[in-house]
Amino acid sequence: MGRDHAGPTDSGRLRSLPRAVRWEGRQLILLDQRKLPLEECSLVCESVQDVHEAICTLTVRGAPAIGIAAAYGLLIGLSGEDMSVEAMRKEVFDRADYLVGARPTAVNLSWAIQRVVALLDHEYADASLMLAALEREAVSIHEEDISACRRIGIHGAPLVKANPNVLTHCNAGSLAVSEMGTALAPVYTAYSEGVDVHVFVDETRPLLQGARLTAYELQAVGVRCTLITDNMAAWAMSSGKVDMVIVGTDRVTVNGDVANKIGTLNLAILCQYYEIPFYVACPVSTIDLDTVAGSDIRIEQRHGEEVTRIAGHQIAPDGISVLNPAFDVTPASLVTGIITENGIASPPCDRNIRAVVQGG
Amino acid sequence: MGRDHAGPTDSGRLRSLPRAVRWEGRQLILLDQRKLPLEECSLVCESVQDVHEAICTLTVRGAPAIGIAAAYGLLIGLSGEDMSVEAMRKEVFDRADYLVGARPTAVNLSWAIQRVVALLDHEYADASLMLAALEREAVSIHEEDISACRRIGIHGAPLVKANPNVLTHCNAGSLAVSEMGTALAPVYTAYSEGVDVHVFVDETRPLLQGARLTAYELQAVGVRCTLITDNMAAWAMSSGKVDMVIVGTDRVTVNGDVANKIGTLNLAILCQYYEIPFYVACPVSTIDLDTVAGSDIRIEQRHGEEVTRIAGHQIAPDGISVLNPAFDVTPASLVTGIITENGIASPPCDRNIRAVVQGG
Repeated sequence: MGRDHAGPTDSGRLRSLPRAVRWEGRQLILLDQRKLPLEECSLVCESVQDVHEAICTLTVRGAPAIGIAAAYGLLIGLSGEDMSVEAMRKEVFDRADYLVGARPTAVNLSWAIQRVVALLDHEYADASLMLAALEREAVSIHEEDISACRRIGIHGAPLVKANPNVLTHCNAGSLAVSEMGTALAPVYTAYSEGVDVHVFVDETRPLLQGARLTAYELQAVGVRCTLITDNMAAWAMSSGKVDMVIVGTDRVTVNGDVANKIGTLNLAILCQYYEIPFYVACPVSTIDLDTVAGSDIRIEQRHGEEVTRIAGHQIAPDGISVLNPAFDVTPASLVTGIITENGIASPPCDRNIRAVVQGG
Repeated sequence: MGRDHAGPTDSGRLRSLPRAVRWEGRQLILLDQRKLPLEECSLVCESVQDVHEAICTLTVRGAPAIGIAAAYGLLIGLSGEDMSVEAMRKEVFDRADYLVGARPTAVNLSWAIQRVVALLDHEYADASLMLAALEREAVSIHEEDISACRRIGIHGAPLVKANPNVLTHCNAGSLAVSEMGTALAPVYTAYSEGVDVHVFVDETRPLLQGARLTAYELQAVGVRCTLITDNMAAWAMSSGKVDMVIVGTDRVTVNGDVANKIGTLNLAILCQYYEIPFYVACPVSTIDLDTVAGSDIRIEQRHGEEVTRIAGHQIAPDGISVLNPAFDVTPASLVTGIITENGIASPPCDRNIRAVVQGG
């Protein structure tokens, strides 16, 4: 599969940034995240069915990465030379219907598919021109994501320079998004500028995205990192080892509340106690201006076996009751700032969030 | 092995309390904690070597339980009928030397062994009388531990009655101590009095004592419980599901600082944020009047593989840096009270701790 570790910037210290999703010669190539970190192998999707399965099985994960993979999935294997415009329009519509159901809760999936599908309404002289337009849109979605992440990195890097011992939770890096990721973009940018950054990686139970994915990509790039269990964060902070926390987010509400992977709220409270800055990084597309407050967000409860089994091994008694909320909501009062591609929204978040969405 | 689930009280609702250590017909019988919760089986120690191995391999764990097992281990297989007083004295001394090295950091191990060994200085008419005196002392250590735990339960039960949704961390129950345990004694006592108590069990990474042991013993007794990953505690508290936290401790210093299983400090800080009472339960023998403050306690760093592997399965990249502190220190300012057999030491802890050690 060749260059699994060559980001679009491909410059200097970031040469080894893993790429979750690649589109090369109209082939969709995914880094298989189910097998990380023990095996590093790619999967070539040769059909829309392959893409659907990859999304369902978490071969590709992270809301933006799923959206990008789906946008390309609409086009895999199509050729303008042997189809009519009408036949291609129908085929892409059918694929859109099919792919959007792969993970119905991921907002970016339907958003990215809609962006491509919207172009089907235009007039095209032939199917090749239609396909070229759709492909340009899919590539644009991908490039815009890369660009947003780079700008998040630029806005956040001075914070990391001033606070080089960063703690993060879950995976909001190159494996979840594009190239630099969101929470890790300021880290990678500072690192590429020569800052001696060190990252504490919360393992992030139950699904261990920190241990499996964040540790993997930081190690691949060469950023110094230390893995800890989630419950060691207070100890690390009390020992003076943590200068700042940066996490990603699944949704920010108008008042500045932040929904993110379970355990994020713990960290925000610890940061307040130890007077450590707590930053959230995301593209403005993650800010949901239709939702007023975190209390309006439904918290998804996932299967108890994610808690009672690790890699198939049972760790708790049969029949034990389990709660397994996938997310928690951190109140805006605990958030130092939200780092976006348009700048940093600082408190009071409710006022400044609208400004940053409108362009900083 | 018969009655693995019949505590010395054996009354009503607590009939099923697991017993970590039993001494029956001069046989030492241990509940094999390595195999819990998947297998529930006992190990009969037939020699001092068996006891040594059981302590080394964590077949028996928890500082008080280890001390009790070692005290009995000094006597296994000895008979006063075929030995001289001198031969028995030498044998017990040799065993003491051998057993004390099994886990040199566990204070109760050397403390319990010393209590038995001290009796070797007395005069005995024959070896049978000596053996009987030693056995009485070992049984006393065991009974005193049971008694202290019961009194901790009596002092703590009104708190549980007022706050029936309890969250605990690690295992400070019957498997670590005797009968009711320390942190769980107030829970069991309230439960036996008819209180509808519910316990959130932190799984307690890295070694999962919560998922494996606390969940097991609460389930065995019939106390309602819910297993969560450690990073779900803030979510549970923010949802109003937690009325109080009770944990055990490995050492309390004179100023009221509390060393306990890693993750305890996290919980204490969350409790302060949510204004939830945070209690510590221990016998007064755990209060170390020779140590002024928590900053004087050395935090043991354990092997990184406890973090990077779960049940033998690798969950993180090869060569990743890991920190694995076994304990953290919770400052006295975060502790609502310390529940002991002599009563509850409330803030200001530094003044009230000496009083409780001296008899409440």
